[in-house]
Amino acid sequence: MKTQLKGDRVLAGKEAVAELYKTGYFGRPKGEGLELSLVEAAFLLSRGKLEIELEGTLLDFRTFFEQASLRQPNFELKYIVYKDLKERGYYVQPSAADFRVYPRGSHPGKNAANIFVHVQSERQLLPVKLLQDSVTSAENVHKQFILAVVDEESDLTFYEVKTAVPKGEMPEPYPAIKTDATFLEDRVIAWDSQASETLYKSGFYGKMLDSERLQLSLVESLYLFSRGIITVRDRKGKVFSFDEFVEKASEIESFFLRKYSAYKNLRDSGHVVKTGFKFGTNFRVYRKVESIEKIPHSEYLVNAIPADFEFRLSVMSGAVRLANSVRKKMLFAVEKGEEIEYLDISRTKM
Amino acid sequence: MKTQLKGDRVLAGKEAVAELYKTGYFGRPKGEGLELSLVEAAFLLSRGKLEIELEGTLLDFRTFFEQASLRQPNFELKYIVYKDLKERGYYVQPSAADFRVYPRGSHPGKNAANIFVHVQSERQLLPVKLLQDSVTSAENVHKQFILAVVDEESDLTFYEVKTAVPKGEMPEPYPAIKTDATFLEDRVIAWDSQASETLYKSGFYGKMLDSERLQLSLVESLYLFSRGIITVRDRKGKVFSFDEFVEKASEIESFFLRKYSAYKNLRDSGHVVKTGFKFGTNFRVYRKVESIEKIPHSEYLVNAIPADFEFRLSVMSGAVRLANSVRKKMLFAVEKGEEIEYLDISRTKM
Repeated sequence: MKTQLKGDRVLAGKEAVAELYKTGYFGRPKGEGLELSLVEAAFLLSRGKLEIELEGTLLDFRTFFEQASLRQPNFELKYIVYKDLKERGYYVQPSAADFRVYPRGSHPGKNAANIFVHVQSERQLLPVKLLQDSVTSAENVHKQFILAVVDEESDLTFYEVKTAVPKGEMPEPYPAIKTDATFLEDRVIAWDSQASETLYKSGFYGKMLDSERLQLSLVESLYLFSRGIITVRDRKGKVFSFDEFVEKASEIESFFLRKYSAYKNLRDSGHVVKTGFKFGTNFRVYRKVESIEKIPHSEYLVNAIPADFEFRLSVMSGAVRLANSVRKKMLFAVEKGEEIEYLDISRTKM
Repeated sequence: MKTQLKGDRVLAGKEAVAELYKTGYFGRPKGEGLELSLVEAAFLLSRGKLEIELEGTLLDFRTFFEQASLRQPNFELKYIVYKDLKERGYYVQPSAADFRVYPRGSHPGKNAANIFVHVQSERQLLPVKLLQDSVTSAENVHKQFILAVVDEESDLTFYEVKTAVPKGEMPEPYPAIKTDATFLEDRVIAWDSQASETLYKSGFYGKMLDSERLQLSLVESLYLFSRGIITVRDRKGKVFSFDEFVEKASEIESFFLRKYSAYKNLRDSGHVVKTGFKFGTNFRVYRKVESIEKIPHSEYLVNAIPADFEFRLSVMSGAVRLANSVRKKMLFAVEKGEEIEYLDISRTKM
């Protein structure tokens, strides 16, 4: 079957409607004929299902591929993903979100597509804003959102991205006590042994320095401070104001306030929040801790990121891989004014 | 036993030599008495082994701790590590590299220390140059180098850091062929089916696009190009020079040449090198691949970093954790002029 390369489309005649569209759901009927996207045409060409002419000359696969790559940004990426999905037996249609994919065993006209696939090169930075918008668009029409990342060797990794509203089960997260603490070089120590024990054993804050004294991280300290539970002094005894504490903490940790916002949001919503340092993240998060002697498995790893953050995909890949390998969810806590919006990113198979 | 806080030392009298130095190897004899570091003094104070005076006033633990924190940078960090090592039963002596640690069951005067411990806060950036110098100093005197990282919650993670000279077992890594390839948008495709098969099956380069054509990454392409194995053309057929290729690749990937140097070094030393994208690193590396049908476990994950790189320790922590969890070594390939120096960082228990 002869077809014509025109701009970034391949145009086929009437017979294509019957042979390609009605049997394989390739292309879109246009007038009497059929219009194919470049990836559809390349796929059909590689299978010997059609011939493609440009200005009267028949194109071999290489020439068509080079032409298509010149005519459409991300052509190779899209082709790699399209071909992969087709070979897995899916019906796939080009769309605004790169591809719409139909449920297994289904096809256009039978059911609606249930997955939106966004194609991304490992090398492109991915703005979290774009990701949030795409995920929200998909979720608004009850579709699953899949990010298909093509790495430099053209291998594919699929990620499912969802919005999340994590909800913990801890009751009142702050004990009704009041105690004194010192801001040392870059951490805080509470000195009273009874208060230390209460904070540690009932609130799951900090780490005991020894049997009497409790070390608190900066985010923990500010949270307890904001609840009126601890008073913080400098090493000479002067009491900090809230703003002074924030200022000093921000000198030590450049993104202190962003981390604190996520910490506060997670604590306020009933979680126990501890450092995720050993996993390379800001936090590890427990939905419920019953006793300090029996700390359960933590459910989430969380990184706090700003609203204008751009993902380097190899970094995201490492974080998600590590989280999934220890059976945790990887959440990104995106600052949005006073609010935090969570994105849950996990590796998935198609 | 009464002692005196003087500057950043605690001075004890004659009886301390017998009670603390000869039995516990604390401090260093000075004149008739004993000089203790602040961490040693704090540890002994918390155990009730001594009393500390400042200008005639006895200091309680809190006041001494605050004073010590004011007098010595990183005092709390060092205290946390010192206390941890003591509680694990090691003899520990303050030194230039923070601490010298003696073999288990041994002590000063019996054997030499066998471990140098460097203490680092999660929050401080760690210049790779400093790390390389410290590791080399330790290795020159046949000591093990341990990096003790104190995270924001005062939890400790120990890393063993070693220099490495990875050596693969692949023979001649490049087949004696010559073929033609096209630089598409951000990847390269070789079109000849026989050449593609040879490169893929014998050289372990690239990934087949379909049964006939081979996709190559940019570093693979330049390596094969530099060996005279492929000729690279643009999508209009113009042949690239080496410099033109490097220029175009560097536009696509800002650190292309650094990655290429590490790739070349690893291939030249007999390894098969593939992308480490799924692990969040530049490369995964095989010491030996016998057949493309039976790809073995890769031994290393490798990140290429510049000579002036500074580690963010939470990022390093995540990378090492992930590598170790999949039973691989995490290597950092440090650019040093024309050479590459490798650092092998792994988590360890004390």
